[in-house]
Amino acid sequence: MAHTLTKLYPWLTSHVVVYAPMLGAATPALAANVTKAGGLGFIAGGTKLDALEATLRQVSELTRIPALQAKTTKDVIPIGVGFQLWGVQLSVATLAFAKLAPAVAWLFAPAKSADLAEWAQGIRHATGGKTHIWVQVGTVAEARSAVHLAKPDVLVVQGSDAGGHGLSQSASVMSLVPEVMDMLDSLGRSDLPVLAAGGITDGRSAAGALALGASGIVMGTRFLAAQEAGIARGWQNEITRLTDGGVSTTRSTLCDRLKETKGWPACYDGRAAINQGHKDEKVGMADSENVALYKGEATSGDSAWGPHGRMVTYAGTGVGLIRDVKPAAAIVEEVRSQARECLKRVADTYVYDKPAARL
Amino acid sequence: MAHTLTKLYPWLTSHVVVYAPMLGAATPALAANVTKAGGLGFIAGGTKLDALEATLRQVSELTRIPALQAKTTKDVIPIGVGFQLWGVQLSVATLAFAKLAPAVAWLFAPAKSADLAEWAQGIRHATGGKTHIWVQVGTVAEARSAVHLAKPDVLVVQGSDAGGHGLSQSASVMSLVPEVMDMLDSLGRSDLPVLAAGGITDGRSAAGALALGASGIVMGTRFLAAQEAGIARGWQNEITRLTDGGVSTTRSTLCDRLKETKGWPACYDGRAAINQGHKDEKVGMADSENVALYKGEATSGDSAWGPHGRMVTYAGTGVGLIRDVKPAAAIVEEVRSQARECLKRVADTYVYDKPAARL
Repeated sequence: MAHTLTKLYPWLTSHVVVYAPMLGAATPALAANVTKAGGLGFIAGGTKLDALEATLRQVSELTRIPALQAKTTKDVIPIGVGFQLWGVQLSVATLAFAKLAPAVAWLFAPAKSADLAEWAQGIRHATGGKTHIWVQVGTVAEARSAVHLAKPDVLVVQGSDAGGHGLSQSASVMSLVPEVMDMLDSLGRSDLPVLAAGGITDGRSAAGALALGASGIVMGTRFLAAQEAGIARGWQNEITRLTDGGVSTTRSTLCDRLKETKGWPACYDGRAAINQGHKDEKVGMADSENVALYKGEATSGDSAWGPHGRMVTYAGTGVGLIRDVKPAAAIVEEVRSQARECLKRVADTYVYDKPAARL
Repeated sequence: MAHTLTKLYPWLTSHVVVYAPMLGAATPALAANVTKAGGLGFIAGGTKLDALEATLRQVSELTRIPALQAKTTKDVIPIGVGFQLWGVQLSVATLAFAKLAPAVAWLFAPAKSADLAEWAQGIRHATGGKTHIWVQVGTVAEARSAVHLAKPDVLVVQGSDAGGHGLSQSASVMSLVPEVMDMLDSLGRSDLPVLAAGGITDGRSAAGALALGASGIVMGTRFLAAQEAGIARGWQNEITRLTDGGVSTTRSTLCDRLKETKGWPACYDGRAAINQGHKDEKVGMADSENVALYKGEATSGDSAWGPHGRMVTYAGTGVGLIRDVKPAAAIVEEVRSQARECLKRVADTYVYDKPAARL
């Protein structure tokens, strides 16, 4: 099982690090550098055709290095593209993908679940099967439906700790990943790789997720503090400053309302750092006033983030474990080596040293 | 680190299983059988002096077997007692403990945090230091404060997946356990054992928590489906029936309001299965009517639990992983052996077989 991912993506030297696609944050340099470090980098699909094709071309250039080319299928760009299905046309993806095929299309948040089938089929057709389909789910029921509708190559199982958008009601990966795996087993699909997402921020949580049974892990928030991340310095400062992520962040639809983003299916909200907007809402401020204050502060530069700021600061509960900004490759390497240490420590302690006594 | 618990509690053959104290559910037989299986069983303190002393005496009898006596300190009962501090007098505990000292007092939910200091001191004094102090926390800030105030022997770190009462806002153990451990390290207290609680239901999640760095794990919901659990059959049926725990359960204060329990500090709520009471509240039913319906159904027997029932059905997100009722000892053994398998599998895959290639 754990070997499946390296079979699918031969350049992977790490099962541990896949980068979640986040609009804006996921620059071509970030995606390319995660892949070049032995992970799998992503860009976000966005809604504009030109932007997607141009971005794919950039990533293609950045990953055109001999070490990768030796391990990748000809004509497949060794990165993935994430799509929030409710907000983007399939034709945007297929037109770009027909010219430049990425290794993976990551499908998330369809307006209705049947759209998953149409997307999976459309993308596979556009690239002659070169692009794999990953589907992100947050419940066992969603996972079952996704397997049926999209026949995914990989399931991304997102738990409640995740930053940014996700289901407003869900479990963390701690119980969700094992329960999804049992469901897959009951369908005779225990071969399907499951990646864990949500709250995984360092090598310890990566080791935890692998011990749970995941075939790999997805990190989003950690890469917001990558040097290559395309986010404002004010947001990035918050990522390294915040502690106690379970209480310094919260799940809410406020960020969408402030940004006047309309169209997220009703089951989604987003986890972000609690700031002045949240506090004002809690004491009864109407959205109209909160939105006006948000817009007013959008010109304040980096000081518009922070506990008294109003800019949206998506972050997962693992934010308290992030203390520095570093190159993406260094993050990949650090998570990988720390995860390895953790797994060695627990196996030596509980399995190999004195098996009978220890566990 | 991982050896610390066996040093503290020499009868432990398992770091993996500690049983969360749940009022009612935690019968003397359940507590004793968890301990006899190599775990650490708990009873709930409750509020009545006679009940506590009598229960301690029962557990003392049940654990008086040569195999345990050889490994326990004279005059210490090898089980623990849990207290929800806001609802019970310290004198209830100390009067009973002065006669019968349990190995552990587990302190949770003080009305004000300073009460932790008073309790820790009072209990240590009552048993001449024979009873260890465990403190349950749900945030990094709580953990820091607890270390300062109670000088605990063990920290129980409860994440958002847990069934029953806990903080209404928190992270899952996935990010919370590592962040608490970093905080302890910064205090020079990396020697302090941390147990993970919340969402841990089988050997996979137990392995995950150990890989995260926890010294042991706490399970509550799993033991609701122990043969020895003192809960109604209707509740137990739900524990084995429910699936998809992230959406079939929810955090809310409704259960306290239905039971007319007053006094929980404002930061707590409880995770329970969603039933008719939750549905009625969602469509606007006033508490007074919901309480009346709840009381009316309390005489309906086991059919009062279930999706259309109204009885309180505390359960964690891991409930979907529980499919059968079995003796507590079998649960301990199953979790232990599955956890060991998981740790062996990941270490062999990612560390030992082909270390460089795999992680």
